[in-house]
Amino acid sequence: MRTLVLGGSGFLGSHIVDRFVAEKHDVTVYDLYTERYRRTPKGVQFITGDFGNVGALDEVISSGFDAIIHCVSTTTPKSSDESAEFDIQSNVIGTVRLMDICVRRGIGKLVFLSSGGTVYGDVGDIPAIPESHGVTPICSYGVSKLSIERYLSVYHHLHGLNYVSLRLSNPYGERQSPHRALGALTVFLYRTLTQQPIEIWGDGSVIRDFIYAGDVASAVHQASVGPLKGVFNVGTGAGTSLRELVAEITRAVNMEPRIVWLKSRPFDVPRVVLDCTKLKTATEWKCLTGMQEGISKTAAWLRDAEAS
Amino acid sequence: MRTLVLGGSGFLGSHIVDRFVAEKHDVTVYDLYTERYRRTPKGVQFITGDFGNVGALDEVISSGFDAIIHCVSTTTPKSSDESAEFDIQSNVIGTVRLMDICVRRGIGKLVFLSSGGTVYGDVGDIPAIPESHGVTPICSYGVSKLSIERYLSVYHHLHGLNYVSLRLSNPYGERQSPHRALGALTVFLYRTLTQQPIEIWGDGSVIRDFIYAGDVASAVHQASVGPLKGVFNVGTGAGTSLRELVAEITRAVNMEPRIVWLKSRPFDVPRVVLDCTKLKTATEWKCLTGMQEGISKTAAWLRDAEAS
Repeated sequence: MRTLVLGGSGFLGSHIVDRFVAEKHDVTVYDLYTERYRRTPKGVQFITGDFGNVGALDEVISSGFDAIIHCVSTTTPKSSDESAEFDIQSNVIGTVRLMDICVRRGIGKLVFLSSGGTVYGDVGDIPAIPESHGVTPICSYGVSKLSIERYLSVYHHLHGLNYVSLRLSNPYGERQSPHRALGALTVFLYRTLTQQPIEIWGDGSVIRDFIYAGDVASAVHQASVGPLKGVFNVGTGAGTSLRELVAEITRAVNMEPRIVWLKSRPFDVPRVVLDCTKLKTATEWKCLTGMQEGISKTAAWLRDAEAS
Repeated sequence: MRTLVLGGSGFLGSHIVDRFVAEKHDVTVYDLYTERYRRTPKGVQFITGDFGNVGALDEVISSGFDAIIHCVSTTTPKSSDESAEFDIQSNVIGTVRLMDICVRRGIGKLVFLSSGGTVYGDVGDIPAIPESHGVTPICSYGVSKLSIERYLSVYHHLHGLNYVSLRLSNPYGERQSPHRALGALTVFLYRTLTQQPIEIWGDGSVIRDFIYAGDVASAVHQASVGPLKGVFNVGTGAGTSLRELVAEITRAVNMEPRIVWLKSRPFDVPRVVLDCTKLKTATEWKCLTGMQEGISKTAAWLRDAEAS
């Protein structure tokens, strides 16, 4: 099976590539740069290109693929609000162009990485959110992810485009940069390991559903090879507050971080935990990596990356 | 009260302008052209400009308005699917730029004309759709309208932008072009009056909620002057099949049209009737114009326009 991973050099992309390589797929990565933290894995074809370059993208896709995994995002929940226009221009229009190519080139399946953490918005105290829940994003990032999902649905309806949209909770793991403004687990872990203070916006009661990137990658694989269609949550189904996260990290690495408390941010919703019953019912997928194991793997990589 | 009507020279815009003028507002219209079927109404200031020209738009808005009515649409449900990219570029990005200006210039309220006819998609046999119903548009037009609604909500959340989004059913009335691919009532009526055959896609069982444009204009006025906030349906609450519509037209003008039956189109949903309880509960608004009266008014205008 020939698989193209757009944005395959990124954090999640690298885990997805690993999974497909392990499953003996013929993997091509299209990205601006090769991976930052390691060489391109053996057997993977790497093509340099910008997601916004529709001509180059079309040429790559014209060689034919059974599945395309779209992991490109030019924004984060925080940066998206600095310019909603840039978010729409690069992500929404970029993905609509990709859909046009997929229809024209007869691509078997398009798998899109959406955001369970932002599309639902502030749902209150719901223990775990199913896909059928209403959506009220409170940041541009969530709106653009939802817009893309809706265009996928329209393209399916009008042109028969076969797609899966995976609404991820909060992924973490090896090769997630500890220096960016997202990925609380990896950032907190890195700062604990390097004895820097952790910054927490709000009182630490914010609850998230942290999922190990390897488990996300196996969901992407299931979505690509099986008959799956439509929108699916991908998370652990379990919530962890930022305070509990600090305790988990402390236990896993046996180091206690110092915390700096900051004012809460308007785009952080109090609780997002995803109900993943739909994906578990439709496939064999399970979330296999517990938080202690995930933290240990990530810590091992951070120590290595730090040392190198 | 100073009111700016973007796209005020269009069909709906002209009814909205009439309503605001009748209510003694200070009305400015910003549009590419003056009205097609009549002179600019007395007392209305007309400014020539393109909605996509962000600098010109900003200069107009910098003079300060209590309310801005956004009636611009560069696409129709049918044309939107010819290029989703154009739809996003001109309508979604255009409106996000408008929102940026409204926030910067401290505009009191932004009223957006959304589409109850397309945002819900195919809802099956639901007698009348409330705003709380799930949304699954099956054309790009519906996706872009929804995206704009979501950005309005995010801008309200992040920047305090005060907005109302009105999801219109199927408006008809004077100054709706009878030569375009939308507005079934006016097109059918015109073709009946001029003894040309009516084209019906499908078997005529498609049900719509036809509302007279003057009633839409009074809803827009209520939305602009009152404390209304958020998303509201604007329709009659009553469904009329295309077959029934032909019978209503026959009765109102005492002429029987010839019908050409065509294959159904993938973007036409079987039934869309809007439940407008939310708007009626929040305001004094009522739909005052019955279908026979509305058809008669529209027929009188079509005869005049045809004669001139």
